[in-house]
Amino acid sequence: MAYLDVYEAMRTTRAVRRLRPDPIPDDVLRRVVEAATWGPTGGNRQPWRVIAVRDVAKKRRLQELYEGPWRAYSAGYRDVLAAATDEVRARDGRMLAAADYLAAHLGEAPVILVFCFNAGLMAITDAALDRPSVVGGASVYPSVQNALLACRAEGLGCTLTTLLCVNEPEVKEVLAIPAEWGTCAFVPIGYPVGRGHGPLNRRQLETMAYADTWGAPLS
Amino acid sequence: MAYLDVYEAMRTTRAVRRLRPDPIPDDVLRRVVEAATWGPTGGNRQPWRVIAVRDVAKKRRLQELYEGPWRAYSAGYRDVLAAATDEVRARDGRMLAAADYLAAHLGEAPVILVFCFNAGLMAITDAALDRPSVVGGASVYPSVQNALLACRAEGLGCTLTTLLCVNEPEVKEVLAIPAEWGTCAFVPIGYPVGRGHGPLNRRQLETMAYADTWGAPLS
Repeated sequence: MAYLDVYEAMRTTRAVRRLRPDPIPDDVLRRVVEAATWGPTGGNRQPWRVIAVRDVAKKRRLQELYEGPWRAYSAGYRDVLAAATDEVRARDGRMLAAADYLAAHLGEAPVILVFCFNAGLMAITDAALDRPSVVGGASVYPSVQNALLACRAEGLGCTLTTLLCVNEPEVKEVLAIPAEWGTCAFVPIGYPVGRGHGPLNRRQLETMAYADTWGAPLS
Repeated sequence: MAYLDVYEAMRTTRAVRRLRPDPIPDDVLRRVVEAATWGPTGGNRQPWRVIAVRDVAKKRRLQELYEGPWRAYSAGYRDVLAAATDEVRARDGRMLAAADYLAAHLGEAPVILVFCFNAGLMAITDAALDRPSVVGGASVYPSVQNALLACRAEGLGCTLTTLLCVNEPEVKEVLAIPAEWGTCAFVPIGYPVGRGHGPLNRRQLETMAYADTWGAPLS
């Protein structure tokens, strides 16, 4: 288990969508999942669970269930892209090609992590507001991020997807997930076909962070 | 900037609620916020922004807005705890005492990070399901977790709270947040009064992770 600086890990953890089918050793997988358990949750309730799917038939079924949502999402994305600049079209076109590859090979990833949550164990503080609620995610996605960073440390490619939520009833049937639990993240992981993790494409800090007031640049 | 192993960072990042008022150097704060920008988001849209609140009057106002929700939440928590075992009551009682301290001193933290999100920039794949939606959080809480891990690396205490969402309209007014943006995470940060980050109190891996089917222990 290599020693990796936390800043270096965060700076180089990106979506890796082309994965080799080679198996992931049990101890490596356990380290990735254990890192997730260290994430913070509201009231330390830990209202999530993860299913590590390695069964070939179940992974194939998840791939089938992914196809429809991916086709719909990517068609919309390509429509938007048609009107974009050449630079954006080239960059996002590469991303879409990799995501097409993932959709066509999801079932071949050695492991798909399926994160589940129980809203009944959460205090969702934005539930009554007149806008989409996101706060339930505060008790599961920090843990998912830990898993992604652990993958980076282990040399495993991975990407966070939520598209399978569209077909949640079918996913729950495949994995025997109880009625009161929902699904919220799907992370195919495996050793990368290409270079794997590396430099990110992100907006500059100045456009993301403000000082004291919306829009005032952070000095 | 010290070198810190990513696993060590994740294993020791816990809620630190007693913070010293001493200022945080600008370059340290920038590193924490920049780490957040590296987090993954759906379609790489980065549909979040963060406001670093250092203004004393604004921090005091946030503390005032925190008091009501904290009083309501903690009263409910104490009711539950009254029926718990001695061990749980002692452990969670310590947590509640620290959280009471935070509520009474929130405005004295040198910085409060306020994370905002724009649902219009998100593909919320679980919006149509017959259960609370959490997927919008997938495009902001991984970034929040990066900020917490960066705080850990910098020796800064921090904790993720969402209680101020209860008073979101007032918070938006204080910080001039535009109508189409919501608030989703509040992270007071500062150098710790006590030991700061350290060992976690979490459920065992075996109770959190399953293999292929709900409830089947991960080997």
